[in-house]
Amino acid sequence: MGEFKHLVIVKFKEGSQVEEILKGMEKLVADVDLVKSFEWGQDLEGPEMLTQGFTHSFSMTFDKKEDYIAFQTHPNHVEYSATFSAAILNIVVLTFPSVTLKPLPPPPPATTAA
Amino acid sequence: MGEFKHLVIVKFKEGSQVEEILKGMEKLVADVDLVKSFEWGQDLEGPEMLTQGFTHSFSMTFDKKEDYIAFQTHPNHVEYSATFSAAILNIVVLTFPSVTLKPLPPPPPATTAA
Repeated sequence: MGEFKHLVIVKFKEGSQVEEILKGMEKLVADVDLVKSFEWGQDLEGPEMLTQGFTHSFSMTFDKKEDYIAFQTHPNHVEYSATFSAAILNIVVLTFPSVTLKPLPPPPPATTAA
Repeated sequence: MGEFKHLVIVKFKEGSQVEEILKGMEKLVADVDLVKSFEWGQDLEGPEMLTQGFTHSFSMTFDKKEDYIAFQTHPNHVEYSATFSAAILNIVVLTFPSVTLKPLPPPPPATTAA
């Protein structure tokens, strides 16, 4: 099996201190070793019809589902979640085993003809 | 700057041939070199309150924004989009330059003291 992903897309409440919230998330993922990798972005392109008002995407990657479950109850995560939740106007959360189709895995090493 | 991401989360119409749609997407991203990497997943965990009914996440990565723009009008993408759109009940699309915080970049090489 591959990695386990926790994807969160959000729209913040007007007047939210988004920079502070992002700094808090950076600290959270840096401090908690269970989080293997972390990417985020702010939408640049989208018409409202496509974004539905969502502005930010946050994607955390875990080696396995058990690490994600442990993260959910990690004290740093619990503490941060209260701050984060207070700033959220709308949110979608998807968690899934990630299937990667590209880049392709490297070919097996060539065998020397006998 | 880092990579450019095109994130799509969807809820398919009841009765959609999701397996066929996924196969079509696999072929699309395999055939179009502009797509640097592709990941997808189907939500496992979420209560409706968190997923809002969305079930699938698709994430395409491009080396740069220009590649994403070229992909939008690529004939394979235009053709596939018609099939895809017909199966969609709800969709959110976010496009953004991706910020990666973890794993950290490698430290600079040690310099030899003079």
